[in-house]
Amino acid sequence: MTAFNNEEDPAYAFVFSRGGDMADMTRVALDAMGGDNAPAQIVRGAVDAVNEHQQIKVFLVGRREEIKRELDQYQFPADRIEIRDATEVIETAEPPVRAIRVKKDSSMVVALNMVRNGEADAFVSAGSSGATLVGGTLLVGRIRGIERAPLAPLIPTRKGVSLLVDCGANVDARADHLLQFAIMGSLYMQHVMGIDHPRVALVNIGAEEDKGNALTKEAYPLLRDCDQINFTGNIEARDIAEGAADVIVCEAFVGNVILKFYEGVAKTLISVIKEGLMSTLISKIGAALALPALKKTIKTFDASQYGGAPLLGVKGLVVKAHGSATAKEIKNSLIQCRQFSKQNVNGYIEEYASRQLAEKGEKNGI
Amino acid sequence: MTAFNNEEDPAYAFVFSRGGDMADMTRVALDAMGGDNAPAQIVRGAVDAVNEHQQIKVFLVGRREEIKRELDQYQFPADRIEIRDATEVIETAEPPVRAIRVKKDSSMVVALNMVRNGEADAFVSAGSSGATLVGGTLLVGRIRGIERAPLAPLIPTRKGVSLLVDCGANVDARADHLLQFAIMGSLYMQHVMGIDHPRVALVNIGAEEDKGNALTKEAYPLLRDCDQINFTGNIEARDIAEGAADVIVCEAFVGNVILKFYEGVAKTLISVIKEGLMSTLISKIGAALALPALKKTIKTFDASQYGGAPLLGVKGLVVKAHGSATAKEIKNSLIQCRQFSKQNVNGYIEEYASRQLAEKGEKNGI
Repeated sequence: MTAFNNEEDPAYAFVFSRGGDMADMTRVALDAMGGDNAPAQIVRGAVDAVNEHQQIKVFLVGRREEIKRELDQYQFPADRIEIRDATEVIETAEPPVRAIRVKKDSSMVVALNMVRNGEADAFVSAGSSGATLVGGTLLVGRIRGIERAPLAPLIPTRKGVSLLVDCGANVDARADHLLQFAIMGSLYMQHVMGIDHPRVALVNIGAEEDKGNALTKEAYPLLRDCDQINFTGNIEARDIAEGAADVIVCEAFVGNVILKFYEGVAKTLISVIKEGLMSTLISKIGAALALPALKKTIKTFDASQYGGAPLLGVKGLVVKAHGSATAKEIKNSLIQCRQFSKQNVNGYIEEYASRQLAEKGEKNGI
Repeated sequence: MTAFNNEEDPAYAFVFSRGGDMADMTRVALDAMGGDNAPAQIVRGAVDAVNEHQQIKVFLVGRREEIKRELDQYQFPADRIEIRDATEVIETAEPPVRAIRVKKDSSMVVALNMVRNGEADAFVSAGSSGATLVGGTLLVGRIRGIERAPLAPLIPTRKGVSLLVDCGANVDARADHLLQFAIMGSLYMQHVMGIDHPRVALVNIGAEEDKGNALTKEAYPLLRDCDQINFTGNIEARDIAEGAADVIVCEAFVGNVILKFYEGVAKTLISVIKEGLMSTLISKIGAALALPALKKTIKTFDASQYGGAPLLGVKGLVVKAHGSATAKEIKNSLIQCRQFSKQNVNGYIEEYASRQLAEKGEKNGI
């Protein structure tokens, strides 16, 4: 609301009838070609987002004809969705570094460059995870003082969601990387998810401080002694799904295993339960009666309502949505971008990183 | 059947009426005091095992009076259950190394020493994991040439069970340790579980050979080039619950996370589903109708029917049952010991280890 301070101003009403205040707008470059359901569900997610939220502007990046064909089906404020041409598409199976370097006119590279050039505040893609991570770091770049940009998906728990950081591609992290993950994750949960004093825990194989491998033993005291986070100690994997912490810190190999195992176990268990329910006539009748209530409860375990996974510590914001994302997850990812930029999360991260750089300089007598 | 070759021999009939051939007997030292349900369920498991299987003899190790009080409730062949005195009990919370060193007259130390001295072939406990691992290595000892003794629980999958190796306490393994885990796990699944050419896979964050951290990158070619196992490549955590491999190889930190996360997710999901089923009157009626079929299906996901987790590569056999083990799991663990010793799994492991030592010797020109 920076440009208008009088709600009776006819210009104010005019802007709002068109859908928003252009000076306080979060501009998202959306990879229209990425993901299993592109471009149809991606385009629809963009339309739903601008119709629901007035301070979002979306650039749909990709093949104009295909995007236009989808867009033509919908009603939306015309000044808040714009198509940007990109002729190529990065496929999921392509080696990410090469894809980002060679496919200069891919939807992903064009969209990431918009964030780099300041034309967009954020980037969202349901396409290749590898290319998103590589492109996010290479094209958009890390905030000065941040040594690694971790991928931090929200995972469903009994109590809501937890941020699992790092699930990215950079394995074998150092203890001081884990500390940065913890601080950035904490800022994210506080400002984007609205959780006061988020509980930060370190994934370990025991509750005691001296448990674990070389990395966790080194990271524990760093986390314990950091006054910027609410560190609650080690978390054993058996307590994750119950929601025992808000920010769950681990090295990327472990984070990846947890994230993918979660998906796999949930899928297998639910499918086994379905088989059980369908196995006899009586159980089928029972299932039909129980299903509506069951679906409602299981829905609380759906993390897609919170959007995609942010890559933390990069300039602007890079968000990786699930490859299977539908319009709902895309819409929520766009709203998540708005929340991230409105709450100025990167401002807090920059402040922390520059303070840390200054402290290091002092230590080195600079 | 070595002592008798004529089934008409009256001595044969006499032995079988008493329950078994003493010369072909697997003798198990069972920690009667370990676990949440000790000694009642432990004693009952022993009784069920000797009643069901004629070639098992159990030494119930612990406080004689408490054990006797339980035993007196049952019928069983008297020569196949024997009580051995031990006055102390190692508690779960005790630091394991200290507990094993100090509590010389604990049920665990006395029972482990029976394996060490050759009085028993195997050890089973539902007590402290840490003390079982430490005691198994320190008191029973590793087979010569085996560098680490991994804990290898069977985890339930859609297709049956997989062996997850290592879930022990020794983290930060080397690549050549993982190779030994793979070979021992493979021998176990082949000879104890009866799976021909068990599929061995390495836990990784991608399917491609060059994916992963320093450890998996080094381990992959070792596993690929080993002609003693059926290596099928990397396994992503999302495929574990579907049963995509029979032997799942990973370093202990990762194995621990997978094992405990599995327990946690299953517990949380099942409890959420129960809540859903109980949330309305209609759903309650539905649940009542569906429950019997559902229980039957979910039961296929119960790994306790296969026994406890073996510590591989130690002389004799050390088996860790769940802390919450009931008589059923104890009985199955005892039958598992019988299968392990009858199939001479340690013979195969010793053969491999000594061949490997000889090859190393040749390489070093010895």
